[in-house]
Amino acid sequence: MQSWQLPEHIADILPSSACRLESARERLLALFRVHGYELVYPPLMEYSHSLLTHIDAGLSLKTIRVVDQLSGRQLGVRADITPQVARIDAHLLSANNGINRLCYAGSVLHARPDGFLSTREPLQVGAELYGYADVAADIELIDLMLKSVAVGGVGEILLSLGHIGVFRTLAEAAGLTGEQAAQLLALMQDKDTAAVTAQVRGWKLDSMWAKAFALLPALYGSREVLAEARAKLPDLFAVGKALNELQAVCDAFPRQVVHIDLSELRVDNYHTGLLYAAYGRDNHEAVARGGRYDGLGGYFGRARPATGFSFDLRTFIGHLPQCGQQPPIAVEAADLQHAQETVDRLRAEGQTVVIDYGSGHNGGRKAMRRLQRQGDGWQVVGAENEVI
Amino acid sequence: MQSWQLPEHIADILPSSACRLESARERLLALFRVHGYELVYPPLMEYSHSLLTHIDAGLSLKTIRVVDQLSGRQLGVRADITPQVARIDAHLLSANNGINRLCYAGSVLHARPDGFLSTREPLQVGAELYGYADVAADIELIDLMLKSVAVGGVGEILLSLGHIGVFRTLAEAAGLTGEQAAQLLALMQDKDTAAVTAQVRGWKLDSMWAKAFALLPALYGSREVLAEARAKLPDLFAVGKALNELQAVCDAFPRQVVHIDLSELRVDNYHTGLLYAAYGRDNHEAVARGGRYDGLGGYFGRARPATGFSFDLRTFIGHLPQCGQQPPIAVEAADLQHAQETVDRLRAEGQTVVIDYGSGHNGGRKAMRRLQRQGDGWQVVGAENEVI
Repeated sequence: MQSWQLPEHIADILPSSACRLESARERLLALFRVHGYELVYPPLMEYSHSLLTHIDAGLSLKTIRVVDQLSGRQLGVRADITPQVARIDAHLLSANNGINRLCYAGSVLHARPDGFLSTREPLQVGAELYGYADVAADIELIDLMLKSVAVGGVGEILLSLGHIGVFRTLAEAAGLTGEQAAQLLALMQDKDTAAVTAQVRGWKLDSMWAKAFALLPALYGSREVLAEARAKLPDLFAVGKALNELQAVCDAFPRQVVHIDLSELRVDNYHTGLLYAAYGRDNHEAVARGGRYDGLGGYFGRARPATGFSFDLRTFIGHLPQCGQQPPIAVEAADLQHAQETVDRLRAEGQTVVIDYGSGHNGGRKAMRRLQRQGDGWQVVGAENEVI
Repeated sequence: MQSWQLPEHIADILPSSACRLESARERLLALFRVHGYELVYPPLMEYSHSLLTHIDAGLSLKTIRVVDQLSGRQLGVRADITPQVARIDAHLLSANNGINRLCYAGSVLHARPDGFLSTREPLQVGAELYGYADVAADIELIDLMLKSVAVGGVGEILLSLGHIGVFRTLAEAAGLTGEQAAQLLALMQDKDTAAVTAQVRGWKLDSMWAKAFALLPALYGSREVLAEARAKLPDLFAVGKALNELQAVCDAFPRQVVHIDLSELRVDNYHTGLLYAAYGRDNHEAVARGGRYDGLGGYFGRARPATGFSFDLRTFIGHLPQCGQQPPIAVEAADLQHAQETVDRLRAEGQTVVIDYGSGHNGGRKAMRRLQRQGDGWQVVGAENEVI
């Protein structure tokens, strides 16, 4: 075992990628700011019972836990930032009964990777809106998600839409127990239509519900799926409301390629309504994902309507533009004192000026530009001593 | 126990502080960039034996450890970033035999706080230079440290200088065992002059060494201390070299208030030479700290000269300037569609435009500025409808 070896699914980010990532981070936080989203930095570590707000076996398994040497209680390293932001809205910002718009960018740790190629240290970036239940808030967040993904540089985006309300309403109307609903949800998540039909038959549900559940996995496609769902699904108020919300989102993004899937239910356990995700042309996994999660703050003493999205900025590394900096300018150490004013000015202009301590200290890297004395002043010259 | 309660020495950073911190982070990384320092993001977590390069009881006690579910080996959450950067220089960037300038900004976790008021989640920001042993490199880093601390806004800075080489040379020349040297170093670090004298007497050291050790704690003050040290300390080559390095730093910052202390040895175990720190007028603790640590990379297969500094950006929060943003501009949701072009333009200019979903949704916060229709276009107006 070498001392420099890193654990699986853990990696360093070296200068050229780090520069692109940092630049994207700055642009994303600026984007959030001009949309009115205020930055918060929740802690990397807190009591695990604050991090695990819901019975969510997945999140629980991903959360690294240690005993706090100060309190003897269990601490967790965050595996998701959203519950922390819900805590902040519920408790620290509770003086505001109106809308809170919050955003964040920070690392999370996963004890186990999500998949074969996943990192265990996602750089989670996201935005959340608390205090407004109307679909207009979801539309605001979807707009911001699409703009964020555009910063990520993945090219043409597919907006994927779902709504956990359709399934939940049917499950309740059909009188499923919590356990049955969870079982059926898992089958839906696996897209196992045959198993859904078999399961529902086994339970001997009223044919109206059996038919509706069997229908759900087939209700996917572009915008016209909504009309089909309206025609074929049972005429329940909450189903109609969910379909209206999906329609409102479609109408708000008339030129956006949209994919609707009423059985696309890969959600966090806290989600309660509309679900949205962005897919790049080349990505099988969503590059950003969000949805409505009304009431999560109730765990912290204030249940509020909430909607938001997040993504792992690291997944964009390969798509981000190169840092467009000019090559550095070398200044010889012996010249530094005399050229100090010029060096300071160049740096103030955003140019990189590196002190050159002589040959043997710059390795193979030949400076593309150098500072050279010209009469009384100093000039930036190229490799051929041409003034540039 | 409330669900929203945070562990001791752990805190959220709320919008007004987070904005200032993020803005300082961006300015610091830009400062590092124009000086030729390249950003790296080492991981939050790696094998603990990679993080604990030296026998350092302090760092070991601070490092949070868990068992890796994938390998069964011990992982640590980093408590210091410098050893990670040394690993990157030694291993990943080993193709460059010249100078590597690297910088970073990231959270670390401490199992126990350093002090009564310390956070357990410092935001460590720092810069390191590998591959150049000359004091010129230390001077470059001290210059960058002073510029960094100026970004932090702490006002007038005291530059504190020390050199572990003086003590180490004397300990070696006096024939102290490793254990004795460590014991004496601890007494020096506690500034317990009487105990130093007593200890050295107890060991019956040659009077030359006993005198030198007893003298060290008295060798502090401004620049003239160096002449005094040169006159009074034994004339050893390595002591002279250390004093020459301190002199060179003093000469490089002629207008800087300098404090020299030859027994100021509160260092990380990896430090080997010159030590430097910056103090604000109101701070008893250094706001930034660094030094030379030649050879640390040897643990990872490539020993190199190295010097660098770091600081916890969080300690600057109280000193950082407010984010100088103009108040947000509200646009009524009903107007959004028609005003979209204006909204996009204002946001592109860096102005914050927030969608107003009507009364009851903005809490007590009255928008200071609003977007209002004026003829065919849109105008930003103040609280009294005056055009601004």
